[in-house]
Amino acid sequence: MMLSDEEYMRRCIELAGLAAGNTDVPVGAVVVKNDSGEIIGEGFNRREADKSPIAHAEIIAIDNASKRLGGWRLIGCTLYVTLEPCAMCAGAIVNSRIDRVVFGADDPRFGACGSAFELFSLGLNHTPILEKGVLKDECARLMKDFFKELRKTR
Amino acid sequence: MMLSDEEYMRRCIELAGLAAGNTDVPVGAVVVKNDSGEIIGEGFNRREADKSPIAHAEIIAIDNASKRLGGWRLIGCTLYVTLEPCAMCAGAIVNSRIDRVVFGADDPRFGACGSAFELFSLGLNHTPILEKGVLKDECARLMKDFFKELRKTR
Repeated sequence: MMLSDEEYMRRCIELAGLAAGNTDVPVGAVVVKNDSGEIIGEGFNRREADKSPIAHAEIIAIDNASKRLGGWRLIGCTLYVTLEPCAMCAGAIVNSRIDRVVFGADDPRFGACGSAFELFSLGLNHTPILEKGVLKDECARLMKDFFKELRKTR
Repeated sequence: MMLSDEEYMRRCIELAGLAAGNTDVPVGAVVVKNDSGEIIGEGFNRREADKSPIAHAEIIAIDNASKRLGGWRLIGCTLYVTLEPCAMCAGAIVNSRIDRVVFGADDPRFGACGSAFELFSLGLNHTPILEKGVLKDECARLMKDFFKELRKTR
């Protein structure tokens, strides 16, 4: 049974906390199968932990979900993420054919879903439904608190 | 010592052949450290083999190179790839701060370096030098032969 968008976003916020514990920017993501409501992939930002520019929360969640389903097409799935996806992650969403994307806070500098630019309006082969601002304040606060702490320790 | 662009592209073509052996679309990529000329990351498309929309040649090569260098910034590096990068891979190139991108064949439908659109001209925080058409005919022939074979077996 599908839970509410807010409930899945709460799980993303929990995951984001694990990233921050690794001194990675706190971003968390889940992939949900719409018919069962089951979370089939989870991820949190591991750019510093894994020493890789690829290891964003969304990429890890999508990779996990695909392996779980046994194929690269995530048709009938929703991706939830605390922060607006960057170009790489928005491209991964297109490649995976995810039906719907729900994010929390805007990313004014790098966001590829309306902030820096809008990948899904460029006429590529797949256009997911896009929903913004779910638990926006909590998701934005995660980031603010993280960078505030970081400045203190420097 | 840095070899010529054509020599690195030949290695990409070899790697692309390994993808085709797995019945994956034949795309190969390498990351080269400009000061030593050494290949520090290699990849070929494993979308079907790994059952993941993330497993493009460029993503695997970038991930390997980053782990090899021990950090997510690939400053002072060049990425070579047989096919024009898609949005996801062009985004990964931005995220990794790669200096220079050299590709072979254009990808009219999905290419994010001038064909479908041009990610590097959208004012993001990093803009690599872009070089197109190195061993273009050989790189394009790889794709044509692959899809011709595929149609036969279907």
